[in-house]
Amino acid sequence: MGPGDDAAVVRAPDGRVAVSTDMLVEGRHFRWDWSAPEDVGRKAIAQNAADVAAVGARPTAFLVALGCPPRTPARVLDALSDGIGRAAEELGAGVVGGDLVQAEQIVVSVTVLGDLGGRPPVRRGGAREGDVVAVAGELGASAAGLALLGTLGVERATELYPELVRAHRIPTPPYRAAEAAARAGVHAMTDVSDGLVADLRHIAVASGVSIVIDAVPAPQALVEPARSLGVDPASWVLGGGEDHAFAATFAATDPLPPGWTRIGYVRAGSGGVTVTGAEPHDVDTEDGGGWQSFSP
Amino acid sequence: MGPGDDAAVVRAPDGRVAVSTDMLVEGRHFRWDWSAPEDVGRKAIAQNAADVAAVGARPTAFLVALGCPPRTPARVLDALSDGIGRAAEELGAGVVGGDLVQAEQIVVSVTVLGDLGGRPPVRRGGAREGDVVAVAGELGASAAGLALLGTLGVERATELYPELVRAHRIPTPPYRAAEAAARAGVHAMTDVSDGLVADLRHIAVASGVSIVIDAVPAPQALVEPARSLGVDPASWVLGGGEDHAFAATFAATDPLPPGWTRIGYVRAGSGGVTVTGAEPHDVDTEDGGGWQSFSP
Repeated sequence: MGPGDDAAVVRAPDGRVAVSTDMLVEGRHFRWDWSAPEDVGRKAIAQNAADVAAVGARPTAFLVALGCPPRTPARVLDALSDGIGRAAEELGAGVVGGDLVQAEQIVVSVTVLGDLGGRPPVRRGGAREGDVVAVAGELGASAAGLALLGTLGVERATELYPELVRAHRIPTPPYRAAEAAARAGVHAMTDVSDGLVADLRHIAVASGVSIVIDAVPAPQALVEPARSLGVDPASWVLGGGEDHAFAATFAATDPLPPGWTRIGYVRAGSGGVTVTGAEPHDVDTEDGGGWQSFSP
Repeated sequence: MGPGDDAAVVRAPDGRVAVSTDMLVEGRHFRWDWSAPEDVGRKAIAQNAADVAAVGARPTAFLVALGCPPRTPARVLDALSDGIGRAAEELGAGVVGGDLVQAEQIVVSVTVLGDLGGRPPVRRGGAREGDVVAVAGELGASAAGLALLGTLGVERATELYPELVRAHRIPTPPYRAAEAAARAGVHAMTDVSDGLVADLRHIAVASGVSIVIDAVPAPQALVEPARSLGVDPASWVLGGGEDHAFAATFAATDPLPPGWTRIGYVRAGSGGVTVTGAEPHDVDTEDGGGWQSFSP
């Protein structure tokens, strides 16, 4: 169907379609002094694509509704649109529908459709006692980039830590690892958008189990910037959202699929997440509390 | 899939899904002094449902992303959400996904999925020379309601013309007529969102034909309010948008399906729409111009 028709028609070869929607708002989810318009477009696509990838689906189509002030320069809209189009194309998906309206601030609302490829959808509620807990993708980099931008300013942060700033601007979810997990029969999966502990808690609650993180990832790239800001890098890894990494639980008897790293295990319980290891980042949410960042 | 999962899964029984998205912005698409929050929710659903109905599909699921200021009262969000939920339910469709974020003004972004029921999608480009042009649903009532609200104020407009004010607040697209048209093999169809002449022009351009309206609908309910405002009621019928009526072209040899009224015919041409009839509402867009409302 052409863009001139009232609705688009998307193939749904296995008779089902995975769908999710997310809205990004200027000033809240992005700042023009920190992100280029193309970055914002890419981020909007990545954030939505990660949602369908987390249920084991491959993105097939996006719809984008954009609200913007009438004074918005055409080059900003063009670049935003380019970022959306390119990111979708890299995923092999089309942008099949849209709406453009006036608003007081830029609002980007994206809906993604995904194909489950004949497999059952992966849910958050499938974790079982004894499962291995694993992650795929970067953890803490987006939070580190955000902290550095806020503390050092955009010029200095970009000069000193270009990779972390980029991780904040343009998340790069490891889609292939998510698909490999779905093919390998992963028990439960989610994307890490609220923070690792918070998102694992969603799995623990939905599954009626508890989760122990006994091997907190310690990315080398976070050590020096964390020291320079006087924070524990684990606060970024455990509490930082927006990396759109994936966290999942697998049968302990199976080898982990490519791209996945073990960080803990599932035990009997009722929705808690416990982090064990060296001080000062012991945390226990068995009482229902969430992870509290130690950063100032 | 539950609301706790990263994405929902919707059935797509015929292997395709019709999709469309629309964004409504406070102050631009609705005003809180003219519309109750539940009305806005209903309008958002109707507007999107009409888009998939126009391609011959039946709405099956909605996703709703909502941006709102932190000071928004809970009762406003509850009522908005009720309007969305009830309108979707009346269509036999579910609200399967959503997002709630902070924004400077209320922004409601809805995506609709629809089922084509095994039929080919109806396009705008299928009109043929000799076709009958017909409409289903109210025309001009929403525009009249808007004009009355703007001129008389909400209290007096609602007291004198409750039906027209209601038509503006809550459009009621004639979904059954659209579905009957799709089943009857309609050649081209669109919903009337920009105004009858403008939307028929979309069909004429996409189909490479011209359209003649030789029987402008003259709803009795518009006569008296138009006289009181000193406008031609045809300006509301031909130029007013947002009624979400349907306009379509059918083979001249077939009887029109239930709910449809003939207003003109298709002739050879290149995208023009001509309105014939009594002055002062003669209009001719063969030169590429659009309908100009005569109202002040």
